[in-house]
Amino acid sequence: MAGKPWSGRFADRTDRRVEAFTESISFDRRLFQQDIRGSIAHARMLQTVGLLTPEECQQIERGLLEIQAEIEAGHFAFVQEREDVHMHIEAALIEKLGDTGRKLHTARSRNDQVVTGLKLWAREALDRVDGALERLQRALVDSARRHREVVLPGYTHLQRAQPVLAAHYFLAYVEKLERDRSRLADCRRRLNVLPLGAAALAGTSLPIDRQAVADALGFDGVAANSLDVSSDRDFAVETVFVLTMIAEHLAGWAEEWILWSTQEFGFLALPDAICTGSSIMPQKKNPDVLELIRGRSARVVGSLTTLLVLIKGLPMAYNRDLQEDKEPLFAAFDTVEACLELAAVVVEGASFRVDRIAERLDEGFLDATTLMEHLIALGVPQRTAHEVIGKLVGQCERRGLKRLADLTDAELAEADPRLGPEARGVLGVANAIRAFRSYGSTAPAEVDAQLARWTSRLHLAEGASPAGG
Amino acid sequence: MAGKPWSGRFADRTDRRVEAFTESISFDRRLFQQDIRGSIAHARMLQTVGLLTPEECQQIERGLLEIQAEIEAGHFAFVQEREDVHMHIEAALIEKLGDTGRKLHTARSRNDQVVTGLKLWAREALDRVDGALERLQRALVDSARRHREVVLPGYTHLQRAQPVLAAHYFLAYVEKLERDRSRLADCRRRLNVLPLGAAALAGTSLPIDRQAVADALGFDGVAANSLDVSSDRDFAVETVFVLTMIAEHLAGWAEEWILWSTQEFGFLALPDAICTGSSIMPQKKNPDVLELIRGRSARVVGSLTTLLVLIKGLPMAYNRDLQEDKEPLFAAFDTVEACLELAAVVVEGASFRVDRIAERLDEGFLDATTLMEHLIALGVPQRTAHEVIGKLVGQCERRGLKRLADLTDAELAEADPRLGPEARGVLGVANAIRAFRSYGSTAPAEVDAQLARWTSRLHLAEGASPAGG
Amino acid sequence: MAGKPWSGRFADRTDRRVEAFTESISFDRRLFQQDIRGSIAHARMLQTVGLLTPEECQQIERGLLEIQAEIEAGHFAFVQEREDVHMHIEAALIEKLGDTGRKLHTARSRNDQVVTGLKLWAREALDRVDGALERLQRALVDSARRHREVVLPGYTHLQRAQPVLAAHYFLAYVEKLERDRSRLADCRRRLNVLPLGAAALAGTSLPIDRQAVADALGFDGVAANSLDVSSDRDFAVETVFVLTMIAEHLAGWAEEWILWSTQEFGFLALPDAICTGSSIMPQKKNPDVLELIRGRSARVVGSLTTLLVLIKGLPMAYNRDLQEDKEPLFAAFDTVEACLELAAVVVEGASFRVDRIAERLDEGFLDATTLMEHLIALGVPQRTAHEVIGKLVGQCERRGLKRLADLTDAELAEADPRLGPEARGVLGVANAIRAFRSYGSTAPAEVDAQLARWTSRLHLAEGASPAGG
Amino acid sequence: MAGKPWSGRFADRTDRRVEAFTESISFDRRLFQQDIRGSIAHARMLQTVGLLTPEECQQIERGLLEIQAEIEAGHFAFVQEREDVHMHIEAALIEKLGDTGRKLHTARSRNDQVVTGLKLWAREALDRVDGALERLQRALVDSARRHREVVLPGYTHLQRAQPVLAAHYFLAYVEKLERDRSRLADCRRRLNVLPLGAAALAGTSLPIDRQAVADALGFDGVAANSLDVSSDRDFAVETVFVLTMIAEHLAGWAEEWILWSTQEFGFLALPDAICTGSSIMPQKKNPDVLELIRGRSARVVGSLTTLLVLIKGLPMAYNRDLQEDKEPLFAAFDTVEACLELAAVVVEGASFRVDRIAERLDEGFLDATTLMEHLIALGVPQRTAHEVIGKLVGQCERRGLKRLADLTDAELAEADPRLGPEARGVLGVANAIRAFRSYGSTAPAEVDAQLARWTSRLHLAEGASPAGG
Repeated sequence: MAGKPWSGRFADRTDRRVEAFTESISFDRRLFQQDIRGSIAHARMLQTVGLLTPEECQQIERGLLEIQAEIEAGHFAFVQEREDVHMHIEAALIEKLGDTGRKLHTARSRNDQVVTGLKLWAREALDRVDGALERLQRALVDSARRHREVVLPGYTHLQRAQPVLAAHYFLAYVEKLERDRSRLADCRRRLNVLPLGAAALAGTSLPIDRQAVADALGFDGVAANSLDVSSDRDFAVETVFVLTMIAEHLAGWAEEWILWSTQEFGFLALPDAICTGSSIMPQKKNPDVLELIRGRSARVVGSLTTLLVLIKGLPMAYNRDLQEDKEPLFAAFDTVEACLELAAVVVEGASFRVDRIAERLDEGFLDATTLMEHLIALGVPQRTAHEVIGKLVGQCERRGLKRLADLTDAELAEADPRLGPEARGVLGVANAIRAFRSYGSTAPAEVDAQLARWTSRLHLAEGASPAGG
Repeated sequence: MAGKPWSGRFADRTDRRVEAFTESISFDRRLFQQDIRGSIAHARMLQTVGLLTPEECQQIERGLLEIQAEIEAGHFAFVQEREDVHMHIEAALIEKLGDTGRKLHTARSRNDQVVTGLKLWAREALDRVDGALERLQRALVDSARRHREVVLPGYTHLQRAQPVLAAHYFLAYVEKLERDRSRLADCRRRLNVLPLGAAALAGTSLPIDRQAVADALGFDGVAANSLDVSSDRDFAVETVFVLTMIAEHLAGWAEEWILWSTQEFGFLALPDAICTGSSIMPQKKNPDVLELIRGRSARVVGSLTTLLVLIKGLPMAYNRDLQEDKEPLFAAFDTVEACLELAAVVVEGASFRVDRIAERLDEGFLDATTLMEHLIALGVPQRTAHEVIGKLVGQCERRGLKRLADLTDAELAEADPRLGPEARGVLGVANAIRAFRSYGSTAPAEVDAQLARWTSRLHLAEGASPAGG
Repeated sequence: MAGKPWSGRFADRTDRRVEAFTESISFDRRLFQQDIRGSIAHARMLQTVGLLTPEECQQIERGLLEIQAEIEAGHFAFVQEREDVHMHIEAALIEKLGDTGRKLHTARSRNDQVVTGLKLWAREALDRVDGALERLQRALVDSARRHREVVLPGYTHLQRAQPVLAAHYFLAYVEKLERDRSRLADCRRRLNVLPLGAAALAGTSLPIDRQAVADALGFDGVAANSLDVSSDRDFAVETVFVLTMIAEHLAGWAEEWILWSTQEFGFLALPDAICTGSSIMPQKKNPDVLELIRGRSARVVGSLTTLLVLIKGLPMAYNRDLQEDKEPLFAAFDTVEACLELAAVVVEGASFRVDRIAERLDEGFLDATTLMEHLIALGVPQRTAHEVIGKLVGQCERRGLKRLADLTDAELAEADPRLGPEARGVLGVANAIRAFRSYGSTAPAEVDAQLARWTSRLHLAEGASPAGG
Repeated sequence: MAGKPWSGRFADRTDRRVEAFTESISFDRRLFQQDIRGSIAHARMLQTVGLLTPEECQQIERGLLEIQAEIEAGHFAFVQEREDVHMHIEAALIEKLGDTGRKLHTARSRNDQVVTGLKLWAREALDRVDGALERLQRALVDSARRHREVVLPGYTHLQRAQPVLAAHYFLAYVEKLERDRSRLADCRRRLNVLPLGAAALAGTSLPIDRQAVADALGFDGVAANSLDVSSDRDFAVETVFVLTMIAEHLAGWAEEWILWSTQEFGFLALPDAICTGSSIMPQKKNPDVLELIRGRSARVVGSLTTLLVLIKGLPMAYNRDLQEDKEPLFAAFDTVEACLELAAVVVEGASFRVDRIAERLDEGFLDATTLMEHLIALGVPQRTAHEVIGKLVGQCERRGLKRLADLTDAELAEADPRLGPEARGVLGVANAIRAFRSYGSTAPAEVDAQLARWTSRLHLAEGASPAGG
């Protein structure tokens, strides 16, 4: 029964099929650095409180760093029987140090050890994601500045609605990503509480100093209830939820840009370098990266579902089911990190087909609402004004006129006498854009103010990007 | 084409089947108070900026309050053709006031109006949920105090692991609920940003004052990008996620108490008033409330999934799909509020069957880990100590001894010479409990400290509950 | 303790909050007809085996039919204390008949009674859905026939790929719906097994005849294991899965038609009667029905998730959690039935904007693959031919030529000498379409064959629709 | 631009980050055998219709088999630039054969090629799962026979309800698994339709014979609509749904056996070989395999969610999102296959602790319902009889009597005069079991009949297992 550190009371060997079924080393090995970092902090604390001698502590630390180097160099043998990365590292330490190695697991359990490693890993990964979010925000702000003068049709129900500045459009995604960063920061704060020292579920009778470990590992606090620690996976679920929202934002954006890359919309030109072709159709150039960003949101939602189903109905405290928290967490991070990186590549590489957009900007009566508001400002009740302009649009459609401006002064006045010649001042997309004035609107001054705010907030050099696009 | 406020450009009536399919009045009518509150704030602002006269504003406000009273009294007729609660209220206002009523929808769209109402509703509901969480925390702390002296077997893998104080157990759930409250507070803060004034998607050319509306409605800020507002449902998804985590915590707890109510565990006595019987089996007394709390977590997860699927791949800005945000949000709130209320009823009503628990506390070798730690404190490496005690447990099992204390001094010493007679000082559940000392552990002093912290934090009267249970 | 039919062993009344929390009458009342049908069949069987006299049976049957009439007429009072529709009906029967009514629940439990009613309901609902699927198939086949001559650009990656006949396009959805009908039929067959007589979980000691009940209620068989019956909800989950796949198919189609209704695609004209307008933008005409069909797929996926989370980890046999199966099942049916009905309305009402489609059919090099296949047929290896045509497309793009046919004979021959003048015979969309020949392809003869197959299979009158569209 | 078989029209190389993001070779390489099998069938058909010479076909076949051998031997180099397993194999073939290799991709696209390979793979995997389901059924039937004489408490609401034979219990799971096999067979039938020849989305102008390919590859039919093929992933979703239901059944069973392995229930003894210990608690022996079977159901539900989110709202035909179908499909199969294998290991290895079960069988008034039915058979209305027995149970509880049999004849008669001494004939668990008689019940004769049915159906040797357990 050698080999299992928990086998004292067992009379029979573990079935090989059971070993294969229960192992986690195939996926948790990526926690090796965090495990070693946690163990070093733990060992130093054990020394401080007298459970290790300074020499033992030093040996352990040196041994662990050697093991880390071996893993990094690819010289470390992982075997199924040793279950997980934590057992591997401890077993290797015992091979190196004998009894001194056997002391490392003092006053801790795998339950709290694993969660400590996983939290350290997730904390770093959250920080990487935050960096990637910021990079994508910068790419978007940069695009906003590059396309400052471009006017786009804005859509609701995917029908042309009102004109918007391209810069306004880009900043809308910057806002969404900012909420993602805010959620991420809240999640990180809640996660950043030390579990180590909760031991299996009840704490320990040994005189440990958990605050010292928290300080050494950069945790903001120490978990106050050992049963809670042993049973808690909130941090994993909340983390994956934060990632899910990012994935959803990217999926909506990707959908939009897939549409905009069609022959029919024709708003966007994607460089060859980010497209792929077809094995059968020689003329194809497909926006695969965008499609995969959209599609991979599904994997993140699936990971969240996995975690929510996993923890459902589990009584306290630790249950082995919880081992299954890692793969969905890793999958969600891997997916979102890759999607964020590629999204920035696409935003940086794509350019608007400005002429193509401008060519059809007059379609869709994008100025109708502004004309209605012109009437309202003259005292016409909104509902009445809405109907007046609605009928003018209907008239245009029946007569094949593409623009409200194609109506004569007489026709306008007939619809409502208050629609005098000065009404032309808000007709046409350019005029309509200039007419906006509310905070948060697509009014040029408002957009400039927001652009300045983000430029400063993201520490971008002002005026670095040329106007136009 | 009378009846539809948007029908100016339409030549044909809406198909009745389409009206039935697209209506939301059957479920959004519960937003009527929030809609009216939002409209009053909007009207006052319109007056301030000169788009309504003081008289018009006063008439509108009075009209809206009359409508509110009619709805509250059940005298208001809801009809499918008027689509949603917002159209109903505006149409009723126009019936009352004519042209003045027609002015209310100035400088807003249903897009921003609906989200404003929904955010106001969700904000209130979040506050109710926070209150219910706090009440449940109090019930748990109160139970912790009532059962201060009770020792429970603690479990991992649902196998008896180490002894824990009942108070420690109850506080573990208080911690989980505290994280829920923390998530809720973060979500509320992010939600509490005014959408109104974003209009359809681009803002407005009318001179509105959005900050004034935010102040009037208690929003902490004003949304900075109209396209973002028109397309955003982050607040709904995050809210339902917060509720999902609460539901998951309750489901785990309910599962545990269902187990504890079995004949086999027998830890808990549930009062008749919260149980139900069987239509066929005369002897049955079932913990239905707990089962339904566990089962209803599924509905909340389902609501979250609905929202995540709903928004997946939607381009900007508003799409009609988003109308479907309300039912899952309402369902999640209704479910979680009811579950929280009943959970408190159960916690308050349930009592531990202390004799029954105590009777079998000696089963499961709950003191084995403490004995191992006793050896560690004497300098035995943890892995060695673990094996020594593991073998002693195996020996007990083979010989039919239920407790480590049933071994003789000689047998203990044979296992390891350092296991002298003083080792008996940590044997037995009572001794084991007393031996704990780490922060966050089940050590009596630690648990008392936590109990004091929560008593103060939740403003409970100290010492109000009798010790014991 | 009057009022609860299971209260014999209970000393205290049920808490009102518990009654409100555990009731299901608010949503299971829609099962009243199925419950009564099941009870009548049960009573007749009880008479056959001698557990009821013929008179008692007659009284019960008459009483149940009276109750059904009262419910249908809206004269039946539903009260929370009576929990569910089954208790309501039985209690009303007892009020009418006294002891005779008290005999109805002989040899059955609510567990098997509820599932019997729910299966009867679901079976009818599945049949309605099958009918709705067939109606939608007919509408699609009819559209295929109306648009037999129309050529559409086919897409992959939402990029123009190859030309397809509109009839081919419509039949693709007919195939998808046919798989849905096939899944539905399999599900119905598996569902259609009688649970009644399994009683609570173990069967009964009374001499019932389950086969007779199955025959009376139209079940194909009798469930062979009472524990399985008491714990089984496979039929509900599989039913909702079948509905989910329908919802997914409709969502994909709705997305496509939303795109096709944009100003940019412009393929489809939707009648006013199925569109709605905007409260603020006078010119808008939005494809709300399609958006809601797309959006409501989320609710069905959410219902499936609810059921999958609900049953996760439940031990045998019945647990009260299972009461929560009804609402997601009802929601999924209501949603899918409404979506199918409206989808047929849209398909029947929409018409292709044939001129608009034709105008741009030459864009996107839809004939490139056919030209490549022309080369392959002449012996050029596919990969070589693919590269030759790919380069010709690249050349056209760089020179601003929209069509391969714009290249001269010399240019074609220069690319590959085998590209002689006869290659023009496959250039242009019309020629490309004519060139197809594989089974299942968009070749006109193949499409006609498929159209004939579906016309016959769906019992549509041949040639009823005029060609063209 | 060498290297990409679709690069004819491309001027720039693919970005390395894009290659890394879009590759699928890291997970689709497991399709290599299916891809090669499909390609050989395709090549033979191409020869038959004259698009390849017999020699070319022979070369291709030999080349593909060489490549298969290289991959199997681990000598094949996979590189990211070649995207997927299909491109790898084709490129290797071209390296071997030059122009002849370039002909293989004639009249097919990756779209139909990939789906063909995936369907072949899924079909084999479904057959493996069906075999594993059957093995588990056999293990259960074998356990039913081994424990034929054991009586268990049956549960509803996890409260003791009525007694059931252990054999009846095991057969309940056999029924559930049989429904799984039935669903699987339906799914396999619907899946087993040939996609190859649909080409990209519209079929081909080359004279292929799809029926011949279907025959060669064992497909039951040929897909009738190329657009449908190009966009369809029903088979993947339905397959994962079938697996989800299996996972749910296993999760419920695992939960039950986790409970039964507790100290408190004590029904089951699990061999050491399938348990694991604790790193800190020396006495622990945990049912990890069962916990992981329960927990891994979450991954399968997550995979289903991923697929349902993935396909949501995708227009026709192929979109690159669909590449993401493979990982959830593989994960679901890997998980369910492993869980089924281990479930059989556990069922075979576990034994009931018969004495422990019997010891407490008298608790919970398991005979109360039978006693009630005894009264009903004497003409007492069910509701009255229910109340009579309910009160007797209440009386026992108040007086501390554990069993109804502990009541005197006089006390029984006082409750209802028809409760004469012969009523004792149904009291006690053994009598209660013998009293059952309905079809599908736990009546010994009924259970024997079911056991015989399954023994024969699963081709188990009769009488091979000793009675008892």
